Amino acid sequence: MEERIKKQLEFSLEIDKEKNVFRQTSLSGKGRKENDAEHAWHMAIMAYLLREYSNDEIDVAKTMLMCLIHDIVEIDAGDTYAYDEEGLKTQKERENAAKERIFSILPDDQKQELTALFDEFESGQTAESRFAHAMDNLQPLMLNDSNDGADWREHNTSAKAVYGRHAMTKLGSETIYAITEQIIKKHIERGNLI
Amino acid sequence: MEERIKKQLEFSLEIDKEKNVFRQTSLSGKGRKENDAEHAWHMAIMAYLLREYSNDEIDVAKTMLMCLIHDIVEIDAGDTYAYDEEGLKTQKERENAAKERIFSILPDDQKQELTALFDEFESGQTAESRFAHAMDNLQPLMLNDSNDGADWREHNTSAKAVYGRHAMTKLGSETIYAITEQIIKKHIERGNLI
Repeated sequence: MEERIKKQLEFSLEIDKEKNVFRQTSLSGKGRKENDAEHAWHMAIMAYLLREYSNDEIDVAKTMLMCLIHDIVEIDAGDTYAYDEEGLKTQKERENAAKERIFSILPDDQKQELTALFDEFESGQTAESRFAHAMDNLQPLMLNDSNDGADWREHNTSAKAVYGRHAMTKLGSETIYAITEQIIKKHIERGNLI
Repeated sequence: MEERIKKQLEFSLEIDKEKNVFRQTSLSGKGRKENDAEHAWHMAIMAYLLREYSNDEIDVAKTMLMCLIHDIVEIDAGDTYAYDEEGLKTQKERENAAKERIFSILPDDQKQELTALFDEFESGQTAESRFAHAMDNLQPLMLNDSNDGADWREHNTSAKAVYGRHAMTKLGSETIYAITEQIIKKHIERGNLI
Protein backbone atom coordinates (compact mmCIF):
# COMPACT_ATOMS: atom_id res chain seq x y z
CA MET A 1 0.00 0.00 0.00
CA GLU A 2 1.26 3.50 -0.83
CA GLU A 3 2.59 5.50 2.12
CA ARG A 4 0.10 8.33 1.52
CA ILE A 5 -3.10 6.31 1.66
CA LYS A 6 -1.68 4.26 4.53
CA LYS A 7 -1.38 7.45 6.60
CA GLN A 8 -4.85 8.59 5.59
CA LEU A 9 -6.35 5.27 6.67
CA GLU A 10 -4.37 5.25 9.90
CA PHE A 11 -5.79 8.69 10.73
CA SER A 12 -9.28 7.52 9.78
CA LEU A 13 -8.99 4.62 12.20
CA GLU A 14 -7.51 6.82 14.95
CA ILE A 15 -10.46 9.21 14.94
CA ASP A 16 -12.80 6.29 15.62
CA LYS A 17 -11.82 6.96 19.26
CA GLU A 18 -13.81 10.18 19.22
CA LYS A 19 -16.92 8.00 19.62
CA ASN A 20 -15.73 7.20 23.14
CA VAL A 21 -15.45 10.83 24.26
CA PHE A 22 -18.66 11.57 26.11
CA ARG A 23 -20.08 15.02 26.70
CA GLN A 24 -22.31 16.45 29.41
CA THR A 25 -25.31 16.74 27.08
CA SER A 26 -28.03 14.10 27.20
CA LEU A 27 -29.75 12.88 24.05
CA SER A 28 -33.36 13.92 23.54
CA GLY A 29 -35.92 11.78 25.36
CA LYS A 30 -33.67 12.04 28.47
CA GLY A 31 -31.34 9.50 26.93
CA ARG A 32 -27.71 8.70 27.69
CA LYS A 33 -24.97 11.31 27.32
CA GLU A 34 -23.94 11.95 23.74
CA ASN A 35 -20.40 11.63 22.41
CA ASP A 36 -18.28 13.99 20.36
CA ALA A 37 -18.72 12.18 17.04
CA GLU A 38 -22.51 12.29 17.31
CA HIS A 39 -22.39 15.94 18.34
CA ALA A 40 -20.17 16.81 15.35
CA TRP A 41 -22.44 14.92 12.93
CA HIS A 42 -25.47 16.76 14.28
CA MET A 43 -23.78 20.17 14.08
CA ALA A 44 -22.65 19.64 10.49
CA ILE A 45 -26.16 18.84 9.26
CA MET A 46 -27.58 21.78 11.21
CA ALA A 47 -24.93 24.08 9.70
CA TYR A 48 -26.12 23.05 6.26
CA LEU A 49 -29.84 23.40 6.99
CA LEU A 50 -29.58 26.69 8.88
CA ARG A 51 -26.89 28.43 6.81
CA GLU A 52 -29.39 31.06 5.61
CA TYR A 53 -29.34 32.54 9.13
CA SER A 54 -25.60 33.23 9.22
CA ASN A 55 -24.90 36.94 9.73
CA ASP A 56 -22.34 36.80 6.93
CA GLU A 57 -22.19 34.66 3.82
CA ILE A 58 -20.37 31.39 4.45
CA ASP A 59 -18.68 28.62 2.51
CA VAL A 60 -20.95 25.88 3.80
CA ALA A 61 -18.64 22.98 2.85
CA LYS A 62 -15.82 24.52 4.86
CA THR A 63 -18.19 25.16 7.77
CA MET A 64 -19.42 21.56 7.73
CA LEU A 65 -15.89 20.15 7.68
CA MET A 66 -14.97 22.47 10.54
CA CYS A 67 -17.93 21.14 12.53
CA LEU A 68 -16.93 17.55 11.78
CA ILE A 69 -13.32 17.90 12.98
CA HIS A 70 -13.54 20.56 15.72
CA ASP A 71 -13.51 18.06 18.60
CA ILE A 72 -10.90 15.57 17.34
CA VAL A 73 -8.35 16.88 19.85
CA GLU A 74 -10.62 15.66 22.65
CA ILE A 75 -9.54 12.09 21.84
CA ASP A 76 -6.49 12.90 23.98
CA ALA A 77 -7.59 16.00 25.85
CA GLY A 78 -11.08 14.82 26.86
CA ASP A 79 -14.22 16.89 26.84
CA THR A 80 -14.06 20.00 28.99
CA TYR A 81 -17.54 20.98 30.15
CA ALA A 82 -18.35 24.52 29.10
CA TYR A 83 -18.98 25.51 32.72
CA ASP A 84 -16.02 23.64 34.33
CA GLU A 85 -13.75 26.49 35.48
CA GLU A 86 -10.84 24.27 36.63
CA GLY A 87 -10.77 22.23 33.43
CA LEU A 88 -10.93 25.34 31.29
CA LYS A 89 -7.61 26.55 32.75
CA THR A 90 -5.58 23.68 31.24
CA GLN A 91 -7.80 23.04 28.19
CA LYS A 92 -5.68 24.97 25.68
CA GLU A 93 -2.43 23.21 26.61
CA ARG A 94 -3.99 19.73 26.54
CA GLU A 95 -5.66 20.40 23.22
CA ASN A 96 -2.51 21.76 21.58
CA ALA A 97 -0.56 18.61 22.38
CA ALA A 98 -3.42 16.48 21.04
CA LYS A 99 -3.67 18.51 17.87
CA GLU A 100 0.01 17.99 17.13
CA ARG A 101 -0.09 14.24 17.79
CA ILE A 102 -3.31 13.39 15.99
CA PHE A 103 -3.06 15.56 12.87
CA SER A 104 0.58 14.43 12.43
CA ILE A 105 -0.71 10.98 11.48
CA LEU A 106 -1.91 12.50 8.16
CA PRO A 107 0.25 13.23 5.11
CA ASP A 108 1.85 16.64 5.65
CA ASP A 109 -0.43 18.64 3.30
CA GLN A 110 -3.55 17.31 5.01
CA LYS A 111 -2.00 17.81 8.45
CA GLN A 112 -1.45 21.49 7.60
CA GLU A 113 -4.94 21.86 6.13
CA LEU A 114 -6.82 20.31 9.04
CA THR A 115 -4.67 22.04 11.65
CA ALA A 116 -5.40 25.38 9.99
CA LEU A 117 -9.12 24.61 9.89
CA PHE A 118 -9.07 23.62 13.56
CA ASP A 119 -7.19 26.82 14.47
CA GLU A 120 -9.63 28.87 12.43
CA PHE A 121 -12.51 27.37 14.40
CA GLU A 122 -10.78 28.07 17.69
CA SER A 123 -9.98 31.70 16.90
CA GLY A 124 -13.53 32.46 15.74
CA GLN A 125 -12.39 35.28 13.46
CA THR A 126 -14.06 34.20 10.21
CA ALA A 127 -17.71 33.98 9.15
CA GLU A 128 -17.45 30.17 8.92
CA SER A 129 -15.96 29.76 12.38
CA ARG A 130 -18.50 32.10 13.94
CA PHE A 131 -21.36 30.16 12.39
CA ALA A 132 -19.78 26.84 13.43
CA HIS A 133 -19.60 28.17 17.01
CA ALA A 134 -23.28 29.11 16.79
CA MET A 135 -24.02 25.48 15.86
CA ASP A 136 -21.70 24.21 18.62
CA ASN A 137 -23.87 26.17 21.06
CA LEU A 138 -27.30 25.62 19.51
CA GLN A 139 -27.06 21.83 19.18
CA PRO A 140 -26.67 21.03 22.92
CA LEU A 141 -29.07 23.89 23.83
CA MET A 142 -31.71 22.28 21.62
CA LEU A 143 -31.23 18.86 23.24
CA ASN A 144 -31.19 20.28 26.74
CA ASP A 145 -34.33 22.32 26.01
CA SER A 146 -36.06 19.16 24.78
CA ASN A 147 -35.19 17.56 28.14
CA ASP A 148 -36.57 20.51 30.14
CA GLY A 149 -33.09 21.73 31.09
CA ALA A 150 -32.05 18.51 32.85
CA ASP A 151 -28.34 18.98 32.05
CA TRP A 152 -28.32 22.43 33.63
CA ARG A 153 -30.17 21.24 36.72
CA GLU A 154 -27.69 18.37 37.10
CA HIS A 155 -24.77 20.82 37.16
CA ASN A 156 -26.50 23.69 39.03
CA THR A 157 -25.63 25.89 36.08
CA SER A 158 -26.10 29.63 36.38
CA ALA A 159 -27.93 31.75 33.83
CA LYS A 160 -24.90 34.03 33.79
CA ALA A 161 -22.59 31.21 32.64
CA VAL A 162 -25.05 30.20 29.92
CA TYR A 163 -25.39 33.76 28.65
CA GLY A 164 -21.58 33.97 28.62
CA ARG A 165 -21.21 30.89 26.49
CA HIS A 166 -23.95 31.84 24.07
CA ALA A 167 -22.60 35.35 23.46
CA MET A 168 -20.56 33.73 20.67
CA THR A 169 -23.80 32.65 18.95
CA LYS A 170 -24.78 36.28 18.36
CA LEU A 171 -21.59 36.84 16.36
CA GLY A 172 -22.53 33.98 14.06
CA SER A 173 -26.27 34.49 13.77
CA GLU A 174 -28.55 37.17 15.20
CA THR A 175 -31.58 35.04 14.29
CA ILE A 176 -30.34 32.01 16.18
CA TYR A 177 -29.30 34.17 19.10
CA ALA A 178 -32.85 35.53 19.36
CA ILE A 179 -34.12 31.95 19.67
CA THR A 180 -31.36 31.14 22.16
CA GLU A 181 -32.45 34.05 24.35
CA GLN A 182 -36.08 32.88 24.31
CA ILE A 183 -34.98 29.42 25.43
CA ILE A 184 -32.69 30.70 28.19
CA LYS A 185 -35.40 33.01 29.54
CA LYS A 186 -37.90 30.16 29.61
CA HIS A 187 -35.53 28.03 31.68
CA ILE A 188 -34.78 30.87 34.10
CA GLU A 189 -38.54 31.23 34.67
CA ARG A 190 -38.87 27.50 35.23
CA GLY A 191 -36.03 27.51 37.75
CA ASN A 192 -33.78 25.27 35.65
CA LEU A 193 -31.04 27.92 35.65
CA ILE A 194 -29.92 29.58 38.88
CA MET B 1 -40.68 32.00 15.99
CA GLU B 2 -41.05 31.98 12.19
CA GLU B 3 -42.67 28.86 10.72
CA ARG B 4 -39.64 28.11 8.54
CA ILE B 5 -36.99 27.99 11.26
CA LYS B 6 -39.43 26.18 13.54
CA LYS B 7 -39.64 23.36 11.00
CA GLN B 8 -35.88 23.31 10.54
CA LEU B 9 -35.33 23.02 14.28
CA GLU B 10 -38.01 20.36 14.60
CA PHE B 11 -36.24 18.29 11.95
CA SER B 12 -32.88 18.90 13.66
CA LEU B 13 -34.30 17.56 16.91
CA GLU B 14 -35.97 14.60 15.18
CA ILE B 15 -32.71 13.34 13.66
CA ASP B 16 -31.19 13.14 17.14
CA LYS B 17 -32.89 9.72 17.20
CA GLU B 18 -30.39 8.42 14.65
CA LYS B 19 -27.94 8.12 17.55
CA ASN B 20 -30.09 5.29 18.89
CA VAL B 21 -29.96 3.19 15.71
CA PHE B 22 -27.21 0.66 16.27
CA ARG B 23 -25.37 -1.18 13.53
CA GLN B 24 -23.65 -4.55 13.40
CA THR B 25 -20.18 -3.01 13.29
CA SER B 26 -18.10 -2.85 16.46
CA LEU B 27 -15.94 0.16 17.25
CA SER B 28 -12.17 -0.33 17.03
CA GLY B 29 -10.60 -1.88 20.11
CA LYS B 30 -13.43 -4.45 20.09
CA GLY B 31 -15.74 -1.81 21.52
CA ARG B 32 -19.51 -1.63 21.55
CA LYS B 33 -21.56 -1.55 18.35
CA GLU B 34 -21.55 1.80 16.59
CA ASN B 35 -24.64 3.80 15.71
CA ASP B 36 -25.73 5.39 12.45
CA ALA B 37 -24.83 8.95 13.44
CA GLU B 38 -21.26 7.97 14.32
CA HIS B 39 -20.97 5.94 11.13
CA ALA B 40 -22.17 8.90 9.02
CA TRP B 41 -19.77 11.31 10.75
CA HIS B 42 -16.87 8.94 10.12
CA MET B 43 -17.81 8.41 6.45
CA ALA B 44 -18.10 12.15 5.77
CA ILE B 45 -14.61 12.89 7.08
CA MET B 46 -13.20 9.93 5.16
CA ALA B 47 -14.92 11.15 1.98
CA TYR B 48 -13.14 14.46 2.37
CA LEU B 49 -9.71 12.99 3.14
CA LEU B 50 -9.82 10.28 0.46
CA ARG B 51 -11.56 12.20 -2.35
CA GLU B 52 -8.41 12.08 -4.49
CA TYR B 53 -9.04 8.35 -5.02
CA SER B 54 -12.50 8.75 -6.56
CA ASN B 55 -12.61 7.30 -10.07
CA ASP B 56 -14.39 10.43 -11.26
CA GLU B 57 -14.15 14.00 -10.06
CA ILE B 58 -16.64 14.72 -7.29
CA ASP B 59 -18.28 17.69 -5.61
CA VAL B 60 -16.94 16.88 -2.16
CA ALA B 61 -19.43 19.06 -0.26
CA LYS B 62 -22.33 17.23 -1.89
CA THR B 63 -20.68 13.87 -1.16
CA MET B 64 -20.16 14.76 2.50
CA LEU B 65 -23.77 15.88 2.93
CA MET B 66 -24.92 12.67 1.24
CA CYS B 67 -22.84 10.66 3.72
CA LEU B 68 -24.26 12.62 6.65
CA ILE B 69 -27.92 12.07 5.75
CA HIS B 70 -27.90 8.67 3.99
CA ASP B 71 -29.09 6.71 7.05
CA ILE B 72 -31.71 9.10 8.42
CA VAL B 73 -34.52 6.83 7.20
CA GLU B 74 -33.27 4.16 9.60
CA ILE B 75 -34.76 6.19 12.47
CA ASP B 76 -38.04 4.51 11.51
CA ALA B 77 -36.87 1.62 9.32
CA GLY B 78 -34.05 0.38 11.55
CA ASP B 79 -30.63 -0.79 10.38
CA THR B 80 -30.75 -3.70 7.95
CA TYR B 81 -27.54 -5.71 8.20
CA ALA B 82 -25.86 -5.94 4.81
CA TYR B 83 -25.97 -9.74 4.94
CA ASP B 84 -29.51 -10.16 6.36
CA GLU B 85 -31.44 -11.67 3.43
CA GLU B 86 -34.89 -11.56 5.05
CA GLY B 87 -34.55 -7.96 6.18
CA LEU B 88 -33.31 -6.89 2.77
CA LYS B 89 -36.60 -7.99 1.17
CA THR B 90 -38.67 -5.35 3.00
CA GLN B 91 -35.95 -2.72 3.36
CA LYS B 92 -37.00 -0.54 0.43
CA GLU B 93 -40.63 -0.29 1.49
CA ARG B 94 -39.78 0.50 5.11
CA GLU B 95 -37.26 3.13 4.07
CA ASN B 96 -39.61 4.85 1.61
CA ALA B 97 -42.24 5.38 4.30
CA ALA B 98 -39.58 6.72 6.65
CA LYS B 99 -38.19 9.06 4.00
CA GLU B 100 -41.62 10.59 3.42
CA ARG B 101 -42.37 11.07 7.12
CA ILE B 102 -39.02 12.42 8.25
CA PHE B 103 -38.10 14.75 5.39
CA SER B 104 -41.66 16.16 5.43
CA ILE B 105 -40.83 17.84 8.73
CA LEU B 106 -38.59 20.28 6.81
CA PRO B 107 -39.77 23.31 4.80
CA ASP B 108 -40.79 22.10 1.37
CA ASP B 109 -37.69 23.27 -0.53
CA GLN B 110 -35.37 21.50 1.90
CA LYS B 111 -37.59 18.41 1.91
CA GLN B 112 -37.24 18.22 -1.87
CA GLU B 113 -33.50 18.83 -1.73
CA LEU B 114 -32.72 16.22 0.91
CA THR B 115 -35.08 13.67 -0.60
CA ALA B 116 -33.37 14.09 -3.97
CA LEU B 117 -29.95 13.72 -2.35
CA PHE B 118 -31.06 10.58 -0.52
CA ASP B 119 -32.49 9.12 -3.75
CA GLU B 120 -29.29 9.97 -5.59
CA PHE B 121 -27.29 8.04 -3.00
CA GLU B 122 -29.63 5.08 -3.25
CA SER B 123 -29.52 4.88 -7.03
CA GLY B 124 -25.72 5.09 -7.18
CA GLN B 125 -25.73 6.59 -10.66
CA THR B 126 -23.54 9.65 -10.04
CA ALA B 127 -19.86 10.03 -9.20
CA GLU B 128 -20.74 11.44 -5.77
CA SER B 129 -23.10 8.59 -4.89
CA ARG B 130 -20.62 5.96 -6.05
CA PHE B 131 -17.87 7.47 -3.91
CA ALA B 132 -20.25 7.78 -0.94
CA HIS B 133 -21.05 4.06 -1.33
CA ALA B 134 -17.32 3.31 -1.37
CA MET B 135 -17.06 5.13 1.99
CA ASP B 136 -20.18 3.35 3.29
CA ASN B 137 -18.34 0.08 2.60
CA LEU B 138 -14.80 1.07 3.57
CA GLN B 139 -15.64 2.54 6.98
CA PRO B 140 -17.07 -0.67 8.55
CA LEU B 141 -14.49 -2.79 6.71
CA MET B 142 -11.73 -0.74 8.31
CA LEU B 143 -13.22 -1.13 11.79
CA ASN B 144 -13.86 -4.83 11.32
CA ASP B 145 -10.32 -5.33 10.02
CA SER B 146 -8.94 -3.56 13.10
CA ASN B 147 -10.89 -6.07 15.22
CA ASP B 148 -9.53 -9.07 13.29
CA GLY B 149 -12.86 -9.69 11.53
CA ALA B 150 -14.84 -10.18 14.73
CA ASP B 151 -18.10 -8.89 13.19
CA TRP B 152 -17.88 -11.40 10.34
CA ARG B 153 -17.13 -14.29 12.71
CA GLU B 154 -20.10 -13.32 14.86
CA HIS B 155 -22.44 -13.57 11.86
CA ASN B 156 -20.73 -16.49 10.06
CA THR B 157 -20.42 -14.22 7.05
CA SER B 158 -19.35 -15.71 3.74
CA ALA B 159 -16.59 -14.31 1.56
CA LYS B 160 -19.03 -14.39 -1.34
CA ALA B 161 -21.47 -12.06 0.44
CA VAL B 162 -18.65 -9.67 1.33
CA TYR B 163 -17.35 -9.59 -2.24
CA GLY B 164 -20.93 -8.90 -3.38
CA ARG B 165 -21.33 -5.92 -1.11
CA HIS B 166 -17.96 -4.44 -1.94
CA ALA B 167 -18.47 -4.67 -5.72
CA MET B 168 -20.00 -1.20 -5.39
CA THR B 169 -16.71 0.13 -4.01
CA LYS B 170 -14.97 -0.57 -7.32
CA LEU B 171 -17.41 1.72 -9.14
CA GLY B 172 -16.47 4.55 -6.79
CA SER B 173 -12.75 3.98 -6.42
CA GLU B 174 -10.42 1.44 -8.03
CA THR B 175 -7.71 2.37 -5.50
CA ILE B 176 -9.91 1.72 -2.51
CA TYR B 177 -11.23 -1.47 -4.05
CA ALA B 178 -7.66 -2.77 -4.38
CA ILE B 179 -7.18 -2.22 -0.64
CA THR B 180 -10.57 -3.80 0.06
CA GLU B 181 -9.51 -6.93 -1.84
CA GLN B 182 -6.28 -7.21 0.14
CA ILE B 183 -8.24 -7.01 3.38
CA ILE B 184 -10.87 -9.56 2.31
CA LYS B 185 -8.18 -12.02 1.16
CA LYS B 186 -6.35 -11.69 4.46
CA HIS B 187 -9.50 -12.57 6.39
CA ILE B 188 -10.28 -15.54 4.15
CA GLU B 189 -6.79 -16.86 4.89
CA ARG B 190 -7.30 -16.35 8.61
CA GLY B 191 -10.61 -18.20 8.49
CA ASN B 192 -12.66 -15.15 9.53
CA LEU B 193 -14.78 -15.44 6.37
CA ILE B 194 -16.35 -18.73 5.35
